[in-house]
Amino acid sequence: MRNKGKFDLKFYLSEKKAIVDRALETYIPEPEGSASDLIKAMKYSLFAGGKRLRPILCLAGTEAVGGTETDCLPVACALELIHTYSLIHDDLPMMDNDDLRRGKPTSHKVFGEAVALLAGDGLLTEAFNLMTRTDLTKDVAPLVMLKVISLISHASGYNGMVGGQVVDIQSEKKPLDFPLVEFIHTHKTGALITASVTSGAMLGRGDESQVRAITSYGRKIGLAFQVSDDILDIEGDSNIMGKKVGADQEKGKITYPSVLGLEKSKEIQSELVEEAIESLRIFDYAAEPLRRIALYIIERKK
Amino acid sequence: MRNKGKFDLKFYLSEKKAIVDRALETYIPEPEGSASDLIKAMKYSLFAGGKRLRPILCLAGTEAVGGTETDCLPVACALELIHTYSLIHDDLPMMDNDDLRRGKPTSHKVFGEAVALLAGDGLLTEAFNLMTRTDLTKDVAPLVMLKVISLISHASGYNGMVGGQVVDIQSEKKPLDFPLVEFIHTHKTGALITASVTSGAMLGRGDESQVRAITSYGRKIGLAFQVSDDILDIEGDSNIMGKKVGADQEKGKITYPSVLGLEKSKEIQSELVEEAIESLRIFDYAAEPLRRIALYIIERKK
Repeated sequence: MRNKGKFDLKFYLSEKKAIVDRALETYIPEPEGSASDLIKAMKYSLFAGGKRLRPILCLAGTEAVGGTETDCLPVACALELIHTYSLIHDDLPMMDNDDLRRGKPTSHKVFGEAVALLAGDGLLTEAFNLMTRTDLTKDVAPLVMLKVISLISHASGYNGMVGGQVVDIQSEKKPLDFPLVEFIHTHKTGALITASVTSGAMLGRGDESQVRAITSYGRKIGLAFQVSDDILDIEGDSNIMGKKVGADQEKGKITYPSVLGLEKSKEIQSELVEEAIESLRIFDYAAEPLRRIALYIIERKK
Repeated sequence: MRNKGKFDLKFYLSEKKAIVDRALETYIPEPEGSASDLIKAMKYSLFAGGKRLRPILCLAGTEAVGGTETDCLPVACALELIHTYSLIHDDLPMMDNDDLRRGKPTSHKVFGEAVALLAGDGLLTEAFNLMTRTDLTKDVAPLVMLKVISLISHASGYNGMVGGQVVDIQSEKKPLDFPLVEFIHTHKTGALITASVTSGAMLGRGDESQVRAITSYGRKIGLAFQVSDDILDIEGDSNIMGKKVGADQEKGKITYPSVLGLEKSKEIQSELVEEAIESLRIFDYAAEPLRRIALYIIERKK
């Protein structure tokens, strides 16, 4: 039986974040040798205060289907590497030209544009190396791991995140259009979030109906998360977020609030979170973290 | 018995190039939908006249151990995607700032810097997706494919190509130093060339001693190839190469000729090619393409 009272989300998130941080520390070496600046830049962004949402979703996805943490930790961390690379490239002057990220100077501000670019490339490449570390994931069938890599690369590439980024960049200062903002959000942010939770379920040996339910959950919260990002860009506190509020508007970005208005956006966000939780109805208390993470998306301040 | 007279390298290279080109055409979709500019940019660089050296080395590596072409074609093409992404990022203004590549305007000159950056990201990501296409490589054991992905991602990342690029960028206008130029060459170019031929041998089910011999061959020709690139930058014909001659010197790049002189560089190149061919002594005529490709490195004009 579910017992909401017993579950402490804040504790859960901080516990999982610590596990992910420790694993990341062991997976990426100390900066040494000729290419030490590259490793330094990779680690700088990797440990710049990320919430580890994607790795935690991966771990929670595994938990929901009764899998073990060890089996999915390298993939969970690989997801954070991919997310981090996308932020470094996104912040470059030729892209969003952001000087601050989570309250810290962005990579190219610290290391210069060339090293920042290559740090992003290095993180993306290392993500795939990490997923092939069969020494760390002995209990995962190789075919399952190939399917997970396929899922994550599909969600990260031209059919997913990179596709969304191109359309996002090209949409600046263009007329507001709902199908366009939906495309950007589901691709740029949604695809990798969905892949995070689905890969967890696959690594935890979830059956077909479980993986399907968790994917449906992932699609809803992936979109809800980006809508909440849009809302925070209007209503958020820049001190808590570590970045400027109102940046989207300034850049003429197409967002949910700019297309549909703030109230309608909040309504859609709530509906998506409700539907996400509804997708998990076949699961018992093991999916409680996923349910509470969905609710957290609305409540979060950064 | 070997019969050098029978082997026509020019025919072999053009035949294999055609096979790779056809496969690449089917693997990357037509530019359609919201992100069509991204696909356009990915294909522009992918079909900008590359020699397909890495895919051909992969196919020839498979051939040497008696494997089949079909099994290694997706990986062969993935190697070209990775190579192409590295060229796009390398040409960006923040990096080498090149306007021409193989006689054509570089990606950022045609599509702008943001789309060029993302086309590179898209190609790198798609390379890993291609290697997980189990529908195309049914006869490859999943564990072998994981090992191949591991090898290629290691060779492409901070331990390989990206590591070499960082040191290369940072070395401009620095004092000439042999260990440094050797590091750059073995990492920036050598690592992926070695991985190309080794992955072919692995996918073709080569035994341990065969894979070891082919890896040794790959290391030698990988370095020889970059040394010959350095030499072509001095002695080459810009009309044949489709790029400016003397660009390395202009940028103050550390090269083999700048550190060791032109004659010594040519000597080293010949020795490396000889050693590469010597590494293949355990193979019969099946390794003839690899032997002839090694010799071609010295003879090539572009």
